[in-house]
Amino acid sequence: MQLLATALLLCLGICTAAAHDDNGLARTPQMGWNTWNKFGCGISEETVLSAARALVSSGLRDFGYEYVIIDDCWQAPSRDPQTQSPRADPTRFPRGIKAVADEVHELGLKVGIYSDAGKFTCGRRFGSLDFEEIDANTYASWEIDYLKYDNCYNEGRAGYDLISFERFARMSRALNATGRPILYSLCNWGEDGPWNWATTIANSWRISGDITDKFDRYDDRCPCTSAIDCKLPGFHCAVTRIIDYSAPLGQKAGPGRWNDLDMLEIGNGGMSYDEYVVHFSIWALVKSPLVLGNDVTKMTSETLSIITNDAIIAVNQDPVGSPAVRLWREPQEAGGTVQLWAGPLANGATIIALLNTSPISQIVTIDLEKDVFMDSDVAQQKAAYRLFDLWQRADESNLVSRWGKDVGVFQSQVPSIYVDAHQIKVWKAVPADAALAVKEQYRLH
Amino acid sequence: MQLLATALLLCLGICTAAAHDDNGLARTPQMGWNTWNKFGCGISEETVLSAARALVSSGLRDFGYEYVIIDDCWQAPSRDPQTQSPRADPTRFPRGIKAVADEVHELGLKVGIYSDAGKFTCGRRFGSLDFEEIDANTYASWEIDYLKYDNCYNEGRAGYDLISFERFARMSRALNATGRPILYSLCNWGEDGPWNWATTIANSWRISGDITDKFDRYDDRCPCTSAIDCKLPGFHCAVTRIIDYSAPLGQKAGPGRWNDLDMLEIGNGGMSYDEYVVHFSIWALVKSPLVLGNDVTKMTSETLSIITNDAIIAVNQDPVGSPAVRLWREPQEAGGTVQLWAGPLANGATIIALLNTSPISQIVTIDLEKDVFMDSDVAQQKAAYRLFDLWQRADESNLVSRWGKDVGVFQSQVPSIYVDAHQIKVWKAVPADAALAVKEQYRLH
Amino acid sequence: MQLLATALLLCLGICTAAAHDDNGLARTPQMGWNTWNKFGCGISEETVLSAARALVSSGLRDFGYEYVIIDDCWQAPSRDPQTQSPRADPTRFPRGIKAVADEVHELGLKVGIYSDAGKFTCGRRFGSLDFEEIDANTYASWEIDYLKYDNCYNEGRAGYDLISFERFARMSRALNATGRPILYSLCNWGEDGPWNWATTIANSWRISGDITDKFDRYDDRCPCTSAIDCKLPGFHCAVTRIIDYSAPLGQKAGPGRWNDLDMLEIGNGGMSYDEYVVHFSIWALVKSPLVLGNDVTKMTSETLSIITNDAIIAVNQDPVGSPAVRLWREPQEAGGTVQLWAGPLANGATIIALLNTSPISQIVTIDLEKDVFMDSDVAQQKAAYRLFDLWQRADESNLVSRWGKDVGVFQSQVPSIYVDAHQIKVWKAVPADAALAVKEQYRLH
Amino acid sequence: MQLLATALLLCLGICTAAAHDDNGLARTPQMGWNTWNKFGCGISEETVLSAARALVSSGLRDFGYEYVIIDDCWQAPSRDPQTQSPRADPTRFPRGIKAVADEVHELGLKVGIYSDAGKFTCGRRFGSLDFEEIDANTYASWEIDYLKYDNCYNEGRAGYDLISFERFARMSRALNATGRPILYSLCNWGEDGPWNWATTIANSWRISGDITDKFDRYDDRCPCTSAIDCKLPGFHCAVTRIIDYSAPLGQKAGPGRWNDLDMLEIGNGGMSYDEYVVHFSIWALVKSPLVLGNDVTKMTSETLSIITNDAIIAVNQDPVGSPAVRLWREPQEAGGTVQLWAGPLANGATIIALLNTSPISQIVTIDLEKDVFMDSDVAQQKAAYRLFDLWQRADESNLVSRWGKDVGVFQSQVPSIYVDAHQIKVWKAVPADAALAVKEQYRLH
Repeated sequence: MQLLATALLLCLGICTAAAHDDNGLARTPQMGWNTWNKFGCGISEETVLSAARALVSSGLRDFGYEYVIIDDCWQAPSRDPQTQSPRADPTRFPRGIKAVADEVHELGLKVGIYSDAGKFTCGRRFGSLDFEEIDANTYASWEIDYLKYDNCYNEGRAGYDLISFERFARMSRALNATGRPILYSLCNWGEDGPWNWATTIANSWRISGDITDKFDRYDDRCPCTSAIDCKLPGFHCAVTRIIDYSAPLGQKAGPGRWNDLDMLEIGNGGMSYDEYVVHFSIWALVKSPLVLGNDVTKMTSETLSIITNDAIIAVNQDPVGSPAVRLWREPQEAGGTVQLWAGPLANGATIIALLNTSPISQIVTIDLEKDVFMDSDVAQQKAAYRLFDLWQRADESNLVSRWGKDVGVFQSQVPSIYVDAHQIKVWKAVPADAALAVKEQYRLH
Repeated sequence: MQLLATALLLCLGICTAAAHDDNGLARTPQMGWNTWNKFGCGISEETVLSAARALVSSGLRDFGYEYVIIDDCWQAPSRDPQTQSPRADPTRFPRGIKAVADEVHELGLKVGIYSDAGKFTCGRRFGSLDFEEIDANTYASWEIDYLKYDNCYNEGRAGYDLISFERFARMSRALNATGRPILYSLCNWGEDGPWNWATTIANSWRISGDITDKFDRYDDRCPCTSAIDCKLPGFHCAVTRIIDYSAPLGQKAGPGRWNDLDMLEIGNGGMSYDEYVVHFSIWALVKSPLVLGNDVTKMTSETLSIITNDAIIAVNQDPVGSPAVRLWREPQEAGGTVQLWAGPLANGATIIALLNTSPISQIVTIDLEKDVFMDSDVAQQKAAYRLFDLWQRADESNLVSRWGKDVGVFQSQVPSIYVDAHQIKVWKAVPADAALAVKEQYRLH
Repeated sequence: MQLLATALLLCLGICTAAAHDDNGLARTPQMGWNTWNKFGCGISEETVLSAARALVSSGLRDFGYEYVIIDDCWQAPSRDPQTQSPRADPTRFPRGIKAVADEVHELGLKVGIYSDAGKFTCGRRFGSLDFEEIDANTYASWEIDYLKYDNCYNEGRAGYDLISFERFARMSRALNATGRPILYSLCNWGEDGPWNWATTIANSWRISGDITDKFDRYDDRCPCTSAIDCKLPGFHCAVTRIIDYSAPLGQKAGPGRWNDLDMLEIGNGGMSYDEYVVHFSIWALVKSPLVLGNDVTKMTSETLSIITNDAIIAVNQDPVGSPAVRLWREPQEAGGTVQLWAGPLANGATIIALLNTSPISQIVTIDLEKDVFMDSDVAQQKAAYRLFDLWQRADESNLVSRWGKDVGVFQSQVPSIYVDAHQIKVWKAVPADAALAVKEQYRLH
Repeated sequence: MQLLATALLLCLGICTAAAHDDNGLARTPQMGWNTWNKFGCGISEETVLSAARALVSSGLRDFGYEYVIIDDCWQAPSRDPQTQSPRADPTRFPRGIKAVADEVHELGLKVGIYSDAGKFTCGRRFGSLDFEEIDANTYASWEIDYLKYDNCYNEGRAGYDLISFERFARMSRALNATGRPILYSLCNWGEDGPWNWATTIANSWRISGDITDKFDRYDDRCPCTSAIDCKLPGFHCAVTRIIDYSAPLGQKAGPGRWNDLDMLEIGNGGMSYDEYVVHFSIWALVKSPLVLGNDVTKMTSETLSIITNDAIIAVNQDPVGSPAVRLWREPQEAGGTVQLWAGPLANGATIIALLNTSPISQIVTIDLEKDVFMDSDVAQQKAAYRLFDLWQRADESNLVSRWGKDVGVFQSQVPSIYVDAHQIKVWKAVPADAALAVKEQYRLH
């Protein structure tokens, strides 16, 4: 049988008990910033450090964005010919990675690096395949806190579960053997179903080809219609496609092991405000890592307002760690779909989201009894709930977060909700009899 | 070639001859009760023993429900640090499993336990992977009669037939080596097609992700449209979905080796009377194990009446052991399908079932000649049959079962049957010339 | 690149040259009779010998049906406990297999036997897995000429090409090592694509689950829509389904290595005359082995007339050994399809077939230029051809075969052909300028 | 993540740096001529040498067609019985391959040969499986420059990535070990996804079954609808089918490693002028090797005009090496599709192609901003571009190529383009502000 994602109370104890076998990291999804989406291969010490400083000055660090991750192209053209150790590009990182890590640490942040379980990285720098131990030890000596580990040029070591598991487990063991806690972010784009086997070796695993900064454009380069048994994950995957990919996979995630929907594109300019809100909301609800991919040194207030919605962040970082489930998905005549998502939060609260990917507005009634609380007992199905709209500002009485407007009490259904094209509505539902107290006291994180 | 499921007489002799190679158990599908569907991880000695006592007091034991199975979460947080033996949760099972087994045995019942062919169980207790021998020996020392063996956290040891076979065969060998007959209930959710390779190592194998207490709701968490080559079995699988999964697989089952459609949900409240009747009937006809999943200490008379239909149970336990076949399946405009199933029983009888999963009633004529007896010889195709409706009470002259109303003699077809939405009709057909004698004497089991 | 099936002349030389590496058998598809389709497990010495005698007395032997194959259930309940040699059922074959083989040989026929690359045969007798050498040597000592080698209970040794190849190659090597030429008929129902890897180890390989004696009935037990990557070949496969399976696979066959569409059902009563003619014709055109599966001791003249159509047999046994190709397949509104097939024969002749699987008659014009001769040069496309209808009796001037009525000369197209429901038309086309001489002299085989 | 195909400038440096690990060949796709498409197995020394001479005399050599490749059937019936070395057919190549190679080299051309990673070649000559070293050494001793390495009769050594990788890597290592630079053209028809694993061992890999000289005819012998996870690549694949196969795969190619769409059919007579132009254009745009397959000793001027369009060749040989991407593909009611392709060229130019595979003409407006420059920055999206139609003759002012007519400056869109049935339009777009200078000076290669 599968672990019942809603069996929360029983699970929490044992999950902690089992945690001694893993690295203990990512009890909630990791948050941070990564060089790739904005800068690609065009990075240097300055790219990294200026971003780190901006995370602090913009306040993003205090919202939880703590990992500063140096993606591909930090490497020198070759390993050290004597020791075979990895080394940094002497032009781009003249003081080496350790010096950068030190400065990042001094800012109260953590630092991540990138390599590849293949002969080359995707950018054709040297990969770590068959160099796992020396590389892990080197990263530890540089005081690295995080490894993103990619899948290009893997010399055919893929095709079924065990062969991929073994390749990626080698780095897992090497990292653990260093003694330094290093978050392990596995990135094989969902090949061979890492949700089935990465759960005991990695803190997160990518489920798809690379994201693109588009809402719903089909692209031949991301050809699969499902993440399950996808033989060419590709790249240029639109946000709605990755959302579809993620829907069946939430059941495999939990504290310390997360589905990674890829880094965020918010602020990179390819989507509207409403579309970026969808992007951020679903990533948060399904407990994806939240890793920014924009230029944090130059952000509009709109961008900043999205990625600092602390009510949404609190959903992502909720201690229950149970990804929201898609309860239904209705194709629309005009194209696109309407989707209802929900999932449990701590203290008996529930997150509910209504997503409209179609090009026209929709009016939808949500059935609390048969849909949102379908897996709950009858008392819960019939109860009344106070809803807080997490994309509206809280009214003054909410002392904890600026977000989460009280929109009233509902029982059995939430009638006739207007949801615009490419828009999402997200509510936190609290049992009505507890809600008054909650309104005064609850802590969103 | 495949074994002809209808080649009954010839098979029975040899199947017995071959049986010396296996554990000799489950010559008909196992019956019992399991903690999971109702109690999940929230179990204790009292959960198990009160259910065992209820099986006796309710009379269910005498209908054949003999295995009391302790599912996940009976384990202590860790193995014995000295011996590496498994041990029970000291709070929930303070006297240990052996004491519980003894009490269950004294009630004239058998006892089952649960583990997992992985690093952890699905509830993240310790798994048995690489501990097969010590675990099997411990179970035997506890006088366990049954092992349900799950598939979570399997360290990537899956992906094609042999790799799954070897992982599960290790426990099979370990159980056989104990010398104690322990029924082996393999539960890898149909991954890598266990119907192709588990037949020589296990008594049953699950064919799908976990059942949910719903009749026909689509759920993203059970995403495959067929059990064949399903790469994400998932859970929250509705009854009609599992019925579809099972249709092509009956050919692989037989005495000692059964397709397991998962435990029963009857009495858990998510379906109507008619829907639970469908659930129980198809499980019985395709020779699935019948393992109750409700709270047997608190049953309505309706629930009890379904699970004690001894005519239906007799179909499941028929010594021929040949799963019914779906002869046709017609999609309906209103949604859902109408399906005709049939299969051979002992003494020349035949089971026939007409299933309507659509939301509206249907009127259907059954073609005995071209459909029900399509694989029979011409004499059988043209013969007259007396039909007994197994979901109507028998009239007084039937001395054997309370179920099975004589609805008359039919030849060539059974015309204009009314079948309600979400309803099934099940008949036992007996050659008309033999039926009079049968009505007086036949033993349903 | 693939071998061009039409590159006949060039291929013939080298194919012969390469033949020294294989057993040299089945230069054309094997023909014979097998116990299974009619008798299943209910066989004995008398079943086999009476059939063998009937093959002679009915004249079938002289049409090429030379192998008498004893299918499953000839085995004793166990191997010889001392030597581990296989042995025959002492009741059914009291004199042993060798004595039966001797009698068959004396009738001028050859003898085949059956085993299984698994722990058990499909009928649950002992299998040959891990007993390949002792079994092959025993068969050779019995003077067996043919082995049908099945796939049940294979202990998970399947799932990708090499694992299936190795399991079946072991018996190939064992048979070759005996020094006796034994035709090797591989029967793994198309699992893992034997057309890709059995070509160097076997003389034929089954491409599908077991045939059933039906023309086009869908059956859940034969669930795949294509033979390619079919994970549950099953059984109860209708004739039209197997025809669809075979269409893309002809490219893999040639002298000594054939796609096996399974044994014939002609005469078993489940199909009409026209349907059996379709069955026999397509099996012959795609160069399947022609192995009878009816009771040859009791045949109607209609059955005999189909299976002794020597013009159709000559197509099957044509020395070029190039399976016909399906040139197009048009779905019909009434259900079913119309299909055009064609392929090269020796001496520049061409076989053409028009098949109507729909339930109503059709009128069809065949385009010789763009369809039948699409792979030929322009001169051949534009040439005139004399057509002989191979399911009409020859007129008197044809001295060679009773079949093959001259229906005239056609150029560019064959207009407005009437083809009834479930009917096939088969013509041999001969270049018109050569046809007169041919009419007097050509030898169909 | 995947390598961003458009990250040109950054990639070029490192790609060169990494190149020391491979054979350094095929920095742009190879060009040449091959015996198979026209002559099949019917080849001899004279076939090869007359073609080589024709490449020189026709001027094709000077357009870049430099490899003369001897495909299957050059082999003797067996290896040298003493040394096991390969040897040539003594009748067809009486002076051996080395003598032919010498003559080809003297003509300023390079020479290629063919073998197979199996027991036999597709033409059933001896294969190289398990003879990799002796064969590579022999080829080097013959001064061979190129190996096409096929996949027939591979003894089941396929089915997942690593097993195919290892079989083909053995020849890669053997070739490299000779010390002679030998271009390695892997030909396993896309089985097991060579685009994922052949990138570090081969210079190109076939993506499909064999091409046929047809534009869009469906053929059962090429049954897959996608190259991804195709289990029967087959042959007789039409041009439009291979184009569909290629669309998602461009992301895997780059300097030294190319998707091979199979050899060209231009001049073999099965397609119209417009269709051959489509064939040549797409092969060039996606950076397939351009290997002629016609009889170059007898070419029409039309054939010659297509294959010597130096503007199109320059696209193929552009140093950026980034395959064009299919931006959209719209099915048409009349059948077929309209497709838009684009990709980056050196010096900031862009290639754009509009393809109409439908049977009727279409009028289409191209959106430069949202489609062609979708991955570019806003400035590029909004810029004006001068377009040169590469299938119209250049006007006099173009000093570099005879092809590439200036059709004006466009911004935001190219309106109302007429494109005939089975026609393609191909433009080189140059930023308008740079175009005047370019018109005078740019070098197409």
